[in-house]
Amino acid sequence: MKLKLVSAAIALALGVGISGMALSQEKPESLVKQRQAKMTLQWKYLKPLYLMSRDRMPYDAKTVAQNVSYLAVLDEMAWDGFDPSTKDLKTHALPAIWSEPAKFKAAQEHLEKAVAQLVKVSKGGNEAAVKSAIGDVNDACNACHKDFREKE
Amino acid sequence: MKLKLVSAAIALALGVGISGMALSQEKPESLVKQRQAKMTLQWKYLKPLYLMSRDRMPYDAKTVAQNVSYLAVLDEMAWDGFDPSTKDLKTHALPAIWSEPAKFKAAQEHLEKAVAQLVKVSKGGNEAAVKSAIGDVNDACNACHKDFREKE
Repeated sequence: MKLKLVSAAIALALGVGISGMALSQEKPESLVKQRQAKMTLQWKYLKPLYLMSRDRMPYDAKTVAQNVSYLAVLDEMAWDGFDPSTKDLKTHALPAIWSEPAKFKAAQEHLEKAVAQLVKVSKGGNEAAVKSAIGDVNDACNACHKDFREKE
Repeated sequence: MKLKLVSAAIALALGVGISGMALSQEKPESLVKQRQAKMTLQWKYLKPLYLMSRDRMPYDAKTVAQNVSYLAVLDEMAWDGFDPSTKDLKTHALPAIWSEPAKFKAAQEHLEKAVAQLVKVSKGGNEAAVKSAIGDVNDACNACHKDFREKE
């Protein structure tokens, strides 16, 4: 309580409105909603590419180019939704996310590298290479889910 | 039923697997989840800018540049989640989305223009102009919600 008052005093001293500060801090429920939204859109744009890579959908270079450009930006967005404040909410997130932060960070970087490679390869236009790079992105998703996401 | 068999025959003739075709069609529930995910991320990245524009958060040019780049891409993503197949699901979407498609399309274009203007102005770096452009984007969101989204 005392700490809150001190924070409030500092905020006032800095000329920052309390309401603005409070509004800029997301509730744990919002953080979960936001991180799930990111996953939903990543899968929206990866799914057709994955089906193409497995020859379960006709290969379409235009869709590949567009979806890869979206995936690159979605992947760039912060993982800030996995904040410790969300630990106790009921989601598929496993406690290892917070108990093994270095391993979780490495899993994010694995995806980052795979997406960067897909961006690069998709510009070359070699269908087989693109399909292989799509598979690698999908593998990076699965590898992270295996360690950090509860089985459904 | 007969039509389904004909479609299947055509698909086979074209060498497209049935399972692949089925998997490439999203269920109405998935479409709703995807369109809501897009809205969630749009607000995630607009909200801090909106608070800055109202002087409820300190203005930070770096955050503005990053979030505007995300908003530009999120806005570019298709509005395909508002498919007629989702009409009967319980969401905040109003029937006007499907009964007044031209008006709904105009509302999307209103947002598109406002975001394009924000992208342009944010490169100039004039804080007052950026704040005004942020307000215009927020207004475009609200204008569409007013006509096409049920009040909460």
